[in-house]
Amino acid sequence: MANKIPTRIYLSEDEMPKHWYNLRADMKEKPELLLHPGTLKPVTSADMEAIFCKEPVKQELDDTTRLIPIPEGIQDFYRAYRPAPLIRAYYLEKDLQTPAEIYYKFEGVNTSGSHKLNSAGPQAYYAKEDGLTSLTTETGAGQWGTAMAMACAFYGLKLTVYMVKISSEQKPYRKALIEAYGANLIPSPSNTTQTGRKILETDPNTTGSLGCAISEAIETAVNTEKCRYVLGSVLNHVLLHQTIIGLEAKVALDKYGIKPDIIIGCAGGGSNLGGLISPFMGEKLAGKLNARFIAVEPASCPSFTRGRYAYDFGDTAKTTPLIRMQTLGSGFIPSANHAGGLRYHGMNSTLSKLYHDGHLEARAETQTEVFDAAVRFMKVEGILPAPESSHAIKVAIDEALECKRTGEKKVILFGLSGVGNFDMTAYMAYNNKTMSDYIPTDEDLQKGFSSIPDIPQNG
Amino acid sequence: MANKIPTRIYLSEDEMPKHWYNLRADMKEKPELLLHPGTLKPVTSADMEAIFCKEPVKQELDDTTRLIPIPEGIQDFYRAYRPAPLIRAYYLEKDLQTPAEIYYKFEGVNTSGSHKLNSAGPQAYYAKEDGLTSLTTETGAGQWGTAMAMACAFYGLKLTVYMVKISSEQKPYRKALIEAYGANLIPSPSNTTQTGRKILETDPNTTGSLGCAISEAIETAVNTEKCRYVLGSVLNHVLLHQTIIGLEAKVALDKYGIKPDIIIGCAGGGSNLGGLISPFMGEKLAGKLNARFIAVEPASCPSFTRGRYAYDFGDTAKTTPLIRMQTLGSGFIPSANHAGGLRYHGMNSTLSKLYHDGHLEARAETQTEVFDAAVRFMKVEGILPAPESSHAIKVAIDEALECKRTGEKKVILFGLSGVGNFDMTAYMAYNNKTMSDYIPTDEDLQKGFSSIPDIPQNG
Repeated sequence: MANKIPTRIYLSEDEMPKHWYNLRADMKEKPELLLHPGTLKPVTSADMEAIFCKEPVKQELDDTTRLIPIPEGIQDFYRAYRPAPLIRAYYLEKDLQTPAEIYYKFEGVNTSGSHKLNSAGPQAYYAKEDGLTSLTTETGAGQWGTAMAMACAFYGLKLTVYMVKISSEQKPYRKALIEAYGANLIPSPSNTTQTGRKILETDPNTTGSLGCAISEAIETAVNTEKCRYVLGSVLNHVLLHQTIIGLEAKVALDKYGIKPDIIIGCAGGGSNLGGLISPFMGEKLAGKLNARFIAVEPASCPSFTRGRYAYDFGDTAKTTPLIRMQTLGSGFIPSANHAGGLRYHGMNSTLSKLYHDGHLEARAETQTEVFDAAVRFMKVEGILPAPESSHAIKVAIDEALECKRTGEKKVILFGLSGVGNFDMTAYMAYNNKTMSDYIPTDEDLQKGFSSIPDIPQNG
Repeated sequence: MANKIPTRIYLSEDEMPKHWYNLRADMKEKPELLLHPGTLKPVTSADMEAIFCKEPVKQELDDTTRLIPIPEGIQDFYRAYRPAPLIRAYYLEKDLQTPAEIYYKFEGVNTSGSHKLNSAGPQAYYAKEDGLTSLTTETGAGQWGTAMAMACAFYGLKLTVYMVKISSEQKPYRKALIEAYGANLIPSPSNTTQTGRKILETDPNTTGSLGCAISEAIETAVNTEKCRYVLGSVLNHVLLHQTIIGLEAKVALDKYGIKPDIIIGCAGGGSNLGGLISPFMGEKLAGKLNARFIAVEPASCPSFTRGRYAYDFGDTAKTTPLIRMQTLGSGFIPSANHAGGLRYHGMNSTLSKLYHDGHLEARAETQTEVFDAAVRFMKVEGILPAPESSHAIKVAIDEALECKRTGEKKVILFGLSGVGNFDMTAYMAYNNKTMSDYIPTDEDLQKGFSSIPDIPQNG
């Protein structure tokens, strides 16, 4: 017997969004502008175009255009793996015996295994439009590196990926996948850049860091003909591309006349969360939707719940523009035992502003409880969730159980941003009960805060 | 601009098949009956029910009922991850510059990563219906073990998986996934069975074999209260469950009035190939469809192209009923360097009969050429294919290039049975050019043939 609301709602190609939605245009209180770290004045296109592609820079600095057309060449890329399904969690609802209706937007149905492809495609497309022949980027856990390798193979661009050295050693399969797509993978630090050589001179046995990999990727991009650098999260143009998630979800829900009461997403740099909530938040700000929005972060890296709202650097080497955001300080280092991604010290500026102004709630969750939720979910829903995405599952289950207690039939929507196929070491630690739930002490946080620059706006 | 025929065709829940299709009912020349190895008489339900669940045994022995209803409890399971998309390979067509239209039925969009779940669900469901509390099975590469672990978690059954020892050591992530779903995983040979203990006594350092794992799983099932054994390929009831693949594909093609000219699938034990082609072969046998059917096997394990059509055992320990099939002999051992699955010595009896009678063609392909095709495919279509499935890709590309040569606009349909996320060691060997293309010599084959039993029917 087929369900009245199907288990999986797929849009037709005609129903797929033709524009991204720029939430900033509908915010009366806009996120603060990016500042040049030298002059402390707003950055210009020219500043940014030395590093990034032209159209993404334009999108980054545009906080007034509501709808930004998705070029046909990018729609073509999206059709290769989208639409992503909106899934009604019938099996989870039954397992929880909740009166709540639970829906999740599943972004793991592609080989990169996550939502990252939604911005990798556009960024490669715009590079091609700019007449570039190659790109550089960095990758930690490997999702972004895989997504960029796929996008560059699709558009016929060369790609160099600086992969954090310890990660490239611990995740040989991610490395193999990135290489199979034809990308040049370099464990970082490397002797291909000044930055890398300098670090290796001081500490030949270093295992690398994301901050160092970013610096190497930028240095290579700047010193290579017809080459630029691409980034997979944090920035507003990345969040813009990710609004395809929320837009598709909204079309699917609207088809069945469903209005969400609670919208939940996991948050690292914020692109997945922001992409999911943008169109719904736009309705809320316009007084058309009465919903709660919850960001879920790991207790080990709590930039929302324990961070500061301050101007800070995006990287540890302090080379990026200054971003006003929720931050733990670019010097903050999350516990080495932390299993998933979501290890970034800061948060997208738009989401930070929404949180600061009280439109967005946030919760921090510990690893073991997150994996408890993941395993409960995977046994009934059949999907192996990424550790990152499982943070959203944890809070969705908590909210559904709260509905069970109160008897309320709320509609819960959460983002399942990816699958855990390449994260089995984390599941092994969970199976073996060797997972750590370390939460940073106030002292740990203080150390991170001390790296936040001391500039007038932060006073 | 949306495509006239969408890139991905998804059925609605109402359109999903409510019956499996039993091809044998429409074959004038039926596959030979299973024989009891002691009496050489056809096996009875009673013989088989000591090991297997009741309904699967009934299905195994039924070669006259055309349509077998899919119980609502199994349709409910199918809705958790189906329908699987039928994909128009627009990007591959463009890359090949072929006038051919290429479609593939993609069965990798679930956590087990393959079509195996289509039979794991039904087998677990019937076990529950029989009042059983546990099941046993074996797994080599791990796809079937994962699928059964998922199905048993869904229906609330205990599961013991005997995993070939070397595989459990070389594929710790598969092991972790099976365990995360709550199954009890035992590296085989083990000291939990007589068979295992005997082998360990003789050779304590053995790395195990699928034949031994099967024997241990059967022994445990027979000696445990309310427990039976389940198998993931070769048998006709497994092929029956897999017809969901071909039935969905046919509904999707019929919606757009498309008739395939060539249908291609990879073949190990035959369940994926048989599931895909069954409804189309039924039409061909009835004179309603003029299509070619091609089975693709690895050159390292060529049961169709170089095997014999003879009665043989299904396992190396020679405990199963005798099956008339294309076989290399149960003693045949494929090269250790062979990367993917498709290592089985025999072939489903229905497919063997169709091949023997000239309704089905077969081709054998070498590893490196198969991976060349896989990488070409993944760069444009964005999906990382399983090594097994890539055999079908290889021949689909060959046929599309033949169309380019002749200018014919044929419709090619192939089965993409799974993804390669847990097969990255094989891709690493390909990237590093350390992959072997060993093809068995006539002497190798002769050794295998000598294990085929010497019984009157084989004379």
